[in-house]
Amino acid sequence: MQKAGLNVVRMGESTWSLWEPEDGHFEYAWMDRVVEAMGRAGIKVIMGTPTYSIPTWLYHAHPEVLARPLGGGETFYGMRQNMDTDNPVYRFYAERVIRNLVQHYKDNPTVIGWQIDNETSSYGASNHDVFVGFVDHLRKKFGTTANLNKAWFLNYWGEDVNAWEDLPTRDSAQSTGYKLEWSRWQQMRVTEFLAWQAALVRQYARAGQFVTTDFGGAMRPDVDEEAIGAVLDIPAINVYHGTQDHFDGAQQAFHEDFARSLQGSNFLVTETNAQTTDWTSSFQFPPYDGQLRADVYTHLSNGANMVEYWHWASIAANQETYWKGVLSHDLEPNRAYAEVSRTAHELHKIGPHLVNLKISNHVAILWSRDSLNAIEFMPFSSAGPQWSGAHPAADYASLVRQIHKALYDLNVSVDFVFPTTQDFSRYKLLVVPALYIADDALLERIADYVKKGGHVVMTFKSGFANENSAVRWVRAPGPLREAAGFSYQEFSNLERPLPLKGDPFHAGDANKVSYWAEFLMPEHAQARASYDHPFFGRWPAITENHYGTGTLLYEGTYLSDTLQTKVLAEALREAGIAGPDQQLPVHVRVRHRVNRLGKRLHYYFNYSSEQKSFAYSYGMGKELLTGTATAHGQQVALKAWDVAIVEEE
Amino acid sequence: MQKAGLNVVRMGESTWSLWEPEDGHFEYAWMDRVVEAMGRAGIKVIMGTPTYSIPTWLYHAHPEVLARPLGGGETFYGMRQNMDTDNPVYRFYAERVIRNLVQHYKDNPTVIGWQIDNETSSYGASNHDVFVGFVDHLRKKFGTTANLNKAWFLNYWGEDVNAWEDLPTRDSAQSTGYKLEWSRWQQMRVTEFLAWQAALVRQYARAGQFVTTDFGGAMRPDVDEEAIGAVLDIPAINVYHGTQDHFDGAQQAFHEDFARSLQGSNFLVTETNAQTTDWTSSFQFPPYDGQLRADVYTHLSNGANMVEYWHWASIAANQETYWKGVLSHDLEPNRAYAEVSRTAHELHKIGPHLVNLKISNHVAILWSRDSLNAIEFMPFSSAGPQWSGAHPAADYASLVRQIHKALYDLNVSVDFVFPTTQDFSRYKLLVVPALYIADDALLERIADYVKKGGHVVMTFKSGFANENSAVRWVRAPGPLREAAGFSYQEFSNLERPLPLKGDPFHAGDANKVSYWAEFLMPEHAQARASYDHPFFGRWPAITENHYGTGTLLYEGTYLSDTLQTKVLAEALREAGIAGPDQQLPVHVRVRHRVNRLGKRLHYYFNYSSEQKSFAYSYGMGKELLTGTATAHGQQVALKAWDVAIVEEE
Amino acid sequence: MQKAGLNVVRMGESTWSLWEPEDGHFEYAWMDRVVEAMGRAGIKVIMGTPTYSIPTWLYHAHPEVLARPLGGGETFYGMRQNMDTDNPVYRFYAERVIRNLVQHYKDNPTVIGWQIDNETSSYGASNHDVFVGFVDHLRKKFGTTANLNKAWFLNYWGEDVNAWEDLPTRDSAQSTGYKLEWSRWQQMRVTEFLAWQAALVRQYARAGQFVTTDFGGAMRPDVDEEAIGAVLDIPAINVYHGTQDHFDGAQQAFHEDFARSLQGSNFLVTETNAQTTDWTSSFQFPPYDGQLRADVYTHLSNGANMVEYWHWASIAANQETYWKGVLSHDLEPNRAYAEVSRTAHELHKIGPHLVNLKISNHVAILWSRDSLNAIEFMPFSSAGPQWSGAHPAADYASLVRQIHKALYDLNVSVDFVFPTTQDFSRYKLLVVPALYIADDALLERIADYVKKGGHVVMTFKSGFANENSAVRWVRAPGPLREAAGFSYQEFSNLERPLPLKGDPFHAGDANKVSYWAEFLMPEHAQARASYDHPFFGRWPAITENHYGTGTLLYEGTYLSDTLQTKVLAEALREAGIAGPDQQLPVHVRVRHRVNRLGKRLHYYFNYSSEQKSFAYSYGMGKELLTGTATAHGQQVALKAWDVAIVEEE
Repeated sequence: MQKAGLNVVRMGESTWSLWEPEDGHFEYAWMDRVVEAMGRAGIKVIMGTPTYSIPTWLYHAHPEVLARPLGGGETFYGMRQNMDTDNPVYRFYAERVIRNLVQHYKDNPTVIGWQIDNETSSYGASNHDVFVGFVDHLRKKFGTTANLNKAWFLNYWGEDVNAWEDLPTRDSAQSTGYKLEWSRWQQMRVTEFLAWQAALVRQYARAGQFVTTDFGGAMRPDVDEEAIGAVLDIPAINVYHGTQDHFDGAQQAFHEDFARSLQGSNFLVTETNAQTTDWTSSFQFPPYDGQLRADVYTHLSNGANMVEYWHWASIAANQETYWKGVLSHDLEPNRAYAEVSRTAHELHKIGPHLVNLKISNHVAILWSRDSLNAIEFMPFSSAGPQWSGAHPAADYASLVRQIHKALYDLNVSVDFVFPTTQDFSRYKLLVVPALYIADDALLERIADYVKKGGHVVMTFKSGFANENSAVRWVRAPGPLREAAGFSYQEFSNLERPLPLKGDPFHAGDANKVSYWAEFLMPEHAQARASYDHPFFGRWPAITENHYGTGTLLYEGTYLSDTLQTKVLAEALREAGIAGPDQQLPVHVRVRHRVNRLGKRLHYYFNYSSEQKSFAYSYGMGKELLTGTATAHGQQVALKAWDVAIVEEE
Repeated sequence: MQKAGLNVVRMGESTWSLWEPEDGHFEYAWMDRVVEAMGRAGIKVIMGTPTYSIPTWLYHAHPEVLARPLGGGETFYGMRQNMDTDNPVYRFYAERVIRNLVQHYKDNPTVIGWQIDNETSSYGASNHDVFVGFVDHLRKKFGTTANLNKAWFLNYWGEDVNAWEDLPTRDSAQSTGYKLEWSRWQQMRVTEFLAWQAALVRQYARAGQFVTTDFGGAMRPDVDEEAIGAVLDIPAINVYHGTQDHFDGAQQAFHEDFARSLQGSNFLVTETNAQTTDWTSSFQFPPYDGQLRADVYTHLSNGANMVEYWHWASIAANQETYWKGVLSHDLEPNRAYAEVSRTAHELHKIGPHLVNLKISNHVAILWSRDSLNAIEFMPFSSAGPQWSGAHPAADYASLVRQIHKALYDLNVSVDFVFPTTQDFSRYKLLVVPALYIADDALLERIADYVKKGGHVVMTFKSGFANENSAVRWVRAPGPLREAAGFSYQEFSNLERPLPLKGDPFHAGDANKVSYWAEFLMPEHAQARASYDHPFFGRWPAITENHYGTGTLLYEGTYLSDTLQTKVLAEALREAGIAGPDQQLPVHVRVRHRVNRLGKRLHYYFNYSSEQKSFAYSYGMGKELLTGTATAHGQQVALKAWDVAIVEEE
Repeated sequence: MQKAGLNVVRMGESTWSLWEPEDGHFEYAWMDRVVEAMGRAGIKVIMGTPTYSIPTWLYHAHPEVLARPLGGGETFYGMRQNMDTDNPVYRFYAERVIRNLVQHYKDNPTVIGWQIDNETSSYGASNHDVFVGFVDHLRKKFGTTANLNKAWFLNYWGEDVNAWEDLPTRDSAQSTGYKLEWSRWQQMRVTEFLAWQAALVRQYARAGQFVTTDFGGAMRPDVDEEAIGAVLDIPAINVYHGTQDHFDGAQQAFHEDFARSLQGSNFLVTETNAQTTDWTSSFQFPPYDGQLRADVYTHLSNGANMVEYWHWASIAANQETYWKGVLSHDLEPNRAYAEVSRTAHELHKIGPHLVNLKISNHVAILWSRDSLNAIEFMPFSSAGPQWSGAHPAADYASLVRQIHKALYDLNVSVDFVFPTTQDFSRYKLLVVPALYIADDALLERIADYVKKGGHVVMTFKSGFANENSAVRWVRAPGPLREAAGFSYQEFSNLERPLPLKGDPFHAGDANKVSYWAEFLMPEHAQARASYDHPFFGRWPAITENHYGTGTLLYEGTYLSDTLQTKVLAEALREAGIAGPDQQLPVHVRVRHRVNRLGKRLHYYFNYSSEQKSFAYSYGMGKELLTGTATAHGQQVALKAWDVAIVEEE
């Protein structure tokens, strides 16, 4: 590692049985040896609390700590991340190992920070204690069962709850309000568990040792990353992405724009692809030459202050045998090692110019976990006839990813904002995908943002249901009606994709919409597109409304990817934030940042196997990797999967 | 509702928790208010017993009332229709609420009838008490275990039962006799439950209050609709069907020909499509303009005396959020309301000409629930390679639907007859799809019908197994051999569709048969078609036999839809029941009825988006909707989805 | 049967409830009557112990004898082959019925042999006693938990076992070592159970009564057929295969080459297709004329000494209603009966020339059950996106079948050899498919075979993991590196099929490889083919290495079927074992044997519906079926599905 130029490792999160081989008997020497060697090599350590995978003796004594899945059924030891993290037995043992561990390493100068747990989620636990906690939560939130019955419309099918002890479990619940609130309870449980771990660690950790945790990718349905971000010193994220012909930086940007937006801060990448990422041997796609290097700079360009791999060396056995590290099973240098090493040595030179980047964006996407979950319970597209359990063809997540990818392809860097965000005014364009769940206040904040000059692009289903997943009993889209400039009473699925009449956004073959069509009845809005269909054609597919000094463009249907890109390109022009970045060659991506020296950085990536050339459009600067001076208008040539980073003078 | 012209509503079936919010505490005021308002508005009420969905307090005290699924496993509260309806705890509570409810409304003049339960089925219950009841049933039916062993061939795999207590449960039973008898036991349970409810209601109901129940569509495998029909004053059926490009009246006719045939009577439509019918939001297909109106007349033309929607207003939450009513969630007038209202007001004028229709048909289809179930256990087509759990490509139900649809497309109105039907002689043509399960007596009745001049079209698998689902141990088709004029010993699946040699029925591209081919060896029968294949070609695919003064046409294979239509068209000609109705333009359908004034009615429907014209072929009359006089041979023009109803003078 | 020329039947294996209708009460008369009738007709009997399907009274008293499936859940009576065969309750009853049965028939001259149980496997049993046995097995094998932790790499995810009682059950185990060892334990259980039955039977059986058992097809993952073979007098196999257009002898050869290789002996065919083989009625494919006869000679040509059908007469009910016997349900003579009868009478004449064939082959395929299982846990191809539970597109079994079929199509008869085989030197060519699991000694034996002049064709994944399913921590392919002449550190799945550059094996459209590509770095080997792809193209796809006096040809990727045939054809030429058999017309197959008279037999089959002609290439002889003298070079004409058997002078 030292020879490869690495200077930080993350260890310990999967090793409870080594720290504590039997109940109450603790061993440290095995790890001390490693930490000491790291210290000698100048490599710093982030130490993980090992609580996400319990030892065999704990399960043997207390099988009840495993998470009960919805619907019941037996559960067994073997996989990790399968506990009821509320269970006091589990908490007792977890607390003891954490206290011992942190006390042991708090003064070790090599240990610079703590990772609490690992890719924590709710594990779908529906154990009795989880359910009891949920009923207590409802009691506090709703006060009386009468309020609950009303909020959740429980007289439907005669399922009123007139005594708290009559509340049925979540297992077969059909109430949409129940399902949504349960998903929130699972999120609250995860937040509380991590806050408890963070507080425990901080009782001992020395000043300067940071506390982080690694999110298992952005936007888990049962993890409130925004809330958890508030209990961390710095968030971390594990980012896996396509390789070979599927490597293009978009997935990294998606996860990392999210991680960065949680606290508006830099972040750590605790895991990313080394050779391959697979739990079988049927997903082995080692990167092409240059992709590992391009990947490191991609992470940094998004605001990462560290890039770590899962993992250094490949494991000879078990679940992740084929989740290969930088080294193969032979532990010898190899193609991946050579490229990682080259990149690390580059960073020794130019790294100080690339960390603590400041990133300020004109565009934000509103992300709503409640909408993700509520739409999952009432999906707007089906899985096709072949299998009812399959994932729908399109959903909230696919829509959010489509929008982010469209903006990414347009070379526009974005932030995410949340239902808790109080002020959208620092953005010129706010994109609101399918905001199915929202209270009136949030909808009014969006309307107000438009009124005061904001530009909004919003899609179908927004404003449809309230915070309890009940459809509003006023004309849709409820409190958005004025800002949107239309109302509607009907909607239809589309059996097959339909074209828009006249291809108004010049999308060519991609002039297609699918899945969903609201029958929008304009009141003040202008129709921007309509369906090429004898029945649906009477209602507009896309509208635009001027409201106050802003505009709200509304997509009443699910656009094809290309069509979405065309519509957003136009919205960017209307919002005055289009420019030369939209003229770069295909597969060339650019990001603009300010580094901690206060200088502007322009990152250029060639995410392709062909050489690409383009004119540099910004101020005189120096390309950091080559040291080449680069002037406005100068041609820059990038080889396959190559990177250029121009620091303005 | 009053303004829309509605004059009857159905209420109460989903509301147990409102009638009885806690054990033994009854509330009526909330419903009295509604009934009173209905009364004032001149709207009559059919009141439902609320027993199909139990309250939370009942489940909390008695979780054992839930239906145990085959194979066991935990079950939970949430969905409706999930009880063991034999359970005495459930019966105790159900009886009390029914008694109280009927006593409360028996004298209310607004309440004109009672619906018992809702879309009742067996819910697949295999609770211990259900199993004990089944063993008792077997004991009565078979007398000794020796008889059972013999009837069910239990020495296969050494599974004889030599003491009643050794009988294994249904869960993993492989015996075909066991499976069939268990399906009958489930049907008997449903019949007994509804008969019990009907008797309870009649203890109190005032004279003139009718008792009905609503079948959840025709031909459920575990509901003996014929037997249940006998305990009702009038049957009711819930009919859902395709809309938009899938609206054509065929599905309504299918369900309603069945409902009408149960007792040879008129019937109620208690539920049909309003806007959309969906448990997610991925099956939203609101009707095209005109379809809601055409639908009402379609139901009436089949013999319905009432058409109700599920439901009036859309529900803001829970399982049926997207099962939209006439009104959307905003409760304002809308496109659906306007069309329903228009139709209702038309009916205020012409309704008296359209109710209590008398329907007499020349053609009947023999429907065998035992054959449906037994073939399901031994399907003759597979689901394809992609998923073993998928529905087979073709089965008994698909064959019955194909035959009904072919006759529907030929503008032939049909009745259904049943294995219990003693006399088929009032029909000119009897169609017998895959009568896999039949006792000798039934087969002899069919043979006798032919002998005395009847025309039969019969398909493969008929007569193959006896009433215990044991294959007959004589040459197939057993007692039908004389009437059919052939025997066979072999049969093959067809790996892919085969053409018939020489396209004998002029089906063009649709000259194809699939799935199944019996190797028919004619004894007296003539070959009407043979397979175009070097091996299969030596056996006929379709035969015709003159037997006595009738004919039996036999399809030894599964015909394509079009080919089936061609074969049935010829059979109609041979039976002397073809005429001008078979010459109408495509998508124009006609039905001939006699109304309660004794006059002949001719219903014409245009199930398409194009205008259609045709010559009226019957006696001088008046088109009721427009008041236009209509003479024989006169051209009638129907706009998209429009209807004409000519009443002969 | 007598009239049809049959002279042996197998009976009794499915009839426990008839032998013992209640606990401890035994009945023999029902079977004595049948055995006596057989004796009178000159038909010998193989009697089965009836232990694979338990009676209802046994289950009623002891439901705990049923096999617990992995993951738990309730199990029920109904299907056969569902016991925990280790359970002492089961053993008690099984032992008693076996003792009684064998004592009863040991002196009956009609009973010539015993079949123990039927198609025995582990039934996936994971009952408590099975688990306890497994832990004992581990204790003996590994000695200490420290050794176990090391061998299985249990510190991964902190799952060390530091006390034997902490070992978790197999249910959710993710350890690759655990999964592999558990599969071996299941095999050991089956072997021990059958050895126990064989010993019991032999305590009573008279001298000359043989003991056999029938394998339910070759290569079950949980049955160690090689070990079981050692406790039998002669192995038996149940061979089912395609019919109609799918009949070609390949599947029979596959199963029977395996059965013959177990002990290098002749074998019995206890079951093969009569009319159809189906548990529903959707897989009914009765054979074309001639196929039943060709099938009998096919079995004999592979070394079978007996051919029996499952079964004589079709059963009127239950699971195998449509698994039709020689007779249909009507029990009358039919097309199948006529052909079986014709063939049996032929055998009365020429049979003595056809039994006890001696078969010696130049080519062997190395079959590794461990590799089958370990690759199943880490599959190298995926099931496609549509369903995660589907079988992968390719796996170890598909590769072995591809190789066997390629050699079969090349008219090359093969043996199977096993990891236990100590000496490969009697073969000129050894084919080694994906030998993923192997200890060093086995790999060294293969290398040594090459060194001493052997020819090996070997595929990807060979040598990758050790005997505990741990990837070797030296450069792949470990101990094979010298013999293979290359090493590799990386591999990739192939997203789609790739061509080989320049079509080096003249495979035309089939010049395609799929699924997997190792990045082979030649050290001494020559590249024989490389990928036509900008990235993968730098590594060879197929290499050949001269090592000692032999060669090792290595396929680093999954070849198309045709390409595999081309590569093996070349390997045959290089090994000097190609000849006129490779020039026969398509669908004509030949087998060369030596009969017990010491004469050479040449079997020719026409597996097609067209007549075929070819020149006979061997010594002067007589065609046994027609009595025609046949000289070298003479033209032989075979009608559709016909057979010729030339016995050399």
